[in-house]
Amino acid sequence: MKCEIIAVGTELLLGQIVDTNSSWMGEHLALAGIDSHYQTKVGDNWDRIEDAVNLALDRSDAVIMCGGLGPTQDDITREVIAKVMGAELVLDEVIAARIEEMFRTRGREMPANNLRQAMVPAGATAISQQPGTAPGLVVPFTREGETEKVLYAVPGVPYEMKEMFLGTIIPDLQQRSGETAVIDSRVLRTWGQSESGLAEMLAPRMEELDDVGNPTLAFLASGVEGIKVRVTAKASDRELVEAMLDEEELQLRKILGELVFAVDESTMESTVLDLLEASGLTLGIVETITGGYIANRLSAAAVSSHAFVGGVVALGPGILSYLVQGEPDSYPGPQKALQLAKKARDVLVADVGIAVTGVEDPNTSSQMFPFGTAWLAISKEGFEHVEEVRLPGDIERIRQNSCISMLNLLRRYLLEHS
Amino acid sequence: MKCEIIAVGTELLLGQIVDTNSSWMGEHLALAGIDSHYQTKVGDNWDRIEDAVNLALDRSDAVIMCGGLGPTQDDITREVIAKVMGAELVLDEVIAARIEEMFRTRGREMPANNLRQAMVPAGATAISQQPGTAPGLVVPFTREGETEKVLYAVPGVPYEMKEMFLGTIIPDLQQRSGETAVIDSRVLRTWGQSESGLAEMLAPRMEELDDVGNPTLAFLASGVEGIKVRVTAKASDRELVEAMLDEEELQLRKILGELVFAVDESTMESTVLDLLEASGLTLGIVETITGGYIANRLSAAAVSSHAFVGGVVALGPGILSYLVQGEPDSYPGPQKALQLAKKARDVLVADVGIAVTGVEDPNTSSQMFPFGTAWLAISKEGFEHVEEVRLPGDIERIRQNSCISMLNLLRRYLLEHS
Repeated sequence: MKCEIIAVGTELLLGQIVDTNSSWMGEHLALAGIDSHYQTKVGDNWDRIEDAVNLALDRSDAVIMCGGLGPTQDDITREVIAKVMGAELVLDEVIAARIEEMFRTRGREMPANNLRQAMVPAGATAISQQPGTAPGLVVPFTREGETEKVLYAVPGVPYEMKEMFLGTIIPDLQQRSGETAVIDSRVLRTWGQSESGLAEMLAPRMEELDDVGNPTLAFLASGVEGIKVRVTAKASDRELVEAMLDEEELQLRKILGELVFAVDESTMESTVLDLLEASGLTLGIVETITGGYIANRLSAAAVSSHAFVGGVVALGPGILSYLVQGEPDSYPGPQKALQLAKKARDVLVADVGIAVTGVEDPNTSSQMFPFGTAWLAISKEGFEHVEEVRLPGDIERIRQNSCISMLNLLRRYLLEHS
Repeated sequence: MKCEIIAVGTELLLGQIVDTNSSWMGEHLALAGIDSHYQTKVGDNWDRIEDAVNLALDRSDAVIMCGGLGPTQDDITREVIAKVMGAELVLDEVIAARIEEMFRTRGREMPANNLRQAMVPAGATAISQQPGTAPGLVVPFTREGETEKVLYAVPGVPYEMKEMFLGTIIPDLQQRSGETAVIDSRVLRTWGQSESGLAEMLAPRMEELDDVGNPTLAFLASGVEGIKVRVTAKASDRELVEAMLDEEELQLRKILGELVFAVDESTMESTVLDLLEASGLTLGIVETITGGYIANRLSAAAVSSHAFVGGVVALGPGILSYLVQGEPDSYPGPQKALQLAKKARDVLVADVGIAVTGVEDPNTSSQMFPFGTAWLAISKEGFEHVEEVRLPGDIERIRQNSCISMLNLLRRYLLEHS
């Protein structure tokens, strides 16, 4: 079963919206064991959408079209599907009623053009999930001399797409595919070694695996998310696949050791939060150059954790003066970072304090401490530690990199002291 | 001149990396007046990359391949290009020397497989910018009976790609295109009205424009970034295009008024920072449910601004107890939000304080204040204001939405009081 994705929208080609939908769908198709070899973006142009759909139907068994189901004139996905099928557009009373009801419960009047969204190609079925005004469609499709294929249409609004994708498309694809082999992947996330360095460390193991062909390994360099090592295994049932992945993870951890900071969806910040929870410790942060990046990442990950108690973003002279006790203009350096980490414990009432400060203004750069120098500090009752790092790139890269480097330092500290 | 983009990498299809490169290139191609009708993602698979390149060369004049130039075995872009050209791979001594030098200056030994990156198809030229180890390529290409086309290869690391794209690819494409018409767009960013609502407001103006066909209008719904209205104009020189865009912006602002919060690359946060600077005011923040999102957005935008002096992310009982004067367990509500906004001024030493708090735990949800209720407060000498909002979706959407709603409230306050 091969399924490809067509994302529709001139705004995607123009980069005004980044197409995260295709990435998300690609990941979930892979997790479901469905091959997805192409993802195409095409603008709101009749002929090119039609060409893209026909090409996709030539080379795949299923096609997911995402976007172009809105109420405006440039939303033409429904019309193009009808043309490709050779079908008429008909008013779907159920969908029309759903849309009217939706506006009613929000106490708003329905603009007349929203009813365009209830016009569907004859032969198509509306997807039962419909969290917004745009209905999703399942369109079975048989071309002369071919077996039945299927075309799905979902809206480009991410949460609407996701609900339809998981609720209808994945189960429908699995039923159609009859695939019995189970494929699954596990991703080991590493920090602290280059891609080619990792490749050399893992070369002997990869050669051993090449002889068997299952599981396989691959590398993914992901910037400040580190370098990922993906293990993919295939077997007759889920238990066997999981056992293969467990065994391979063990082998890789023997080689990579503490470079591995997380597995699969776990992140540097969720790892840190888990380690804090396990030790019964709370964390407070003071940030200068990272201006809230660390607090943001931790609180996004901390939905069910109480380990992260808060942070201070200290940029102006008033707050800095308070935190460093009257020396706001003193040059940033390791002592100031330690002082701020200690303050993070005091002000935020936390067991562990961390602080990031550094040289973020090229004008205050010096030979000793050039632009991109940062200090990462940890403070705990009876313990303090500070590290100086030199980070490459522009201010945005320096911030991202300081953030992840600070969290990695804290991770290593927590691993060693728990 | 039509140029299309092929992003190479199985990790893109699997969603382990979101393809922001194609979006960025698409935007910059459009700004340069070069049509880009398709963007394709394809995995690290020889046959499928070859098919994708041949298809792209059939329908476009230029093709940019991004990714697959790394040092590992699954980086095969160079090899596939050689195959499509019918050329040999040869060692480029200049590139080899660059890569060796790069490792030398970083004090690291070059892994042997990095030399694979110096193998280029005969007839290709190395792009002169090379910020990393992967060289970019310009490959002129003539198929029988066709005019010369061109294929570019750039690495998938964003800052490496960008330097090559702006330094070599755009100038090369413009020289090849001979396009004399200048096309440019302007985006008016709105907050506070639905897409179909905007469409109805603008329908009369769109009908007028349809008769002429230039400029054109389009809508882009961008979630928490609001809804964008894009104006695109075409004329014989840049001055004329700019005049057309200025005139149309004026017309649209008459219709949309304060719904327009920013233009083009400006954002809600850069607008707020500009308004603060213009009034000579500084800003401090206290956040609970948004956990650093607002501080992060403001500091990312505040590279050259001193208006944003800092923030406190208050999650734990210790810091909350300090800020709300001994009532940390009191139910969140409008009074608490106002108290926190006042504290933001005091603690961070700022002229204006804002605070976001709310019900972010479904367990503390009540009929009066359900999950998703948030309070947005502003405090300034002699002025205070608080608003209650009900936000839909999961906790992540509630945070994003509270963040942008708070900034929009502050924008409107600053507009009215400056």
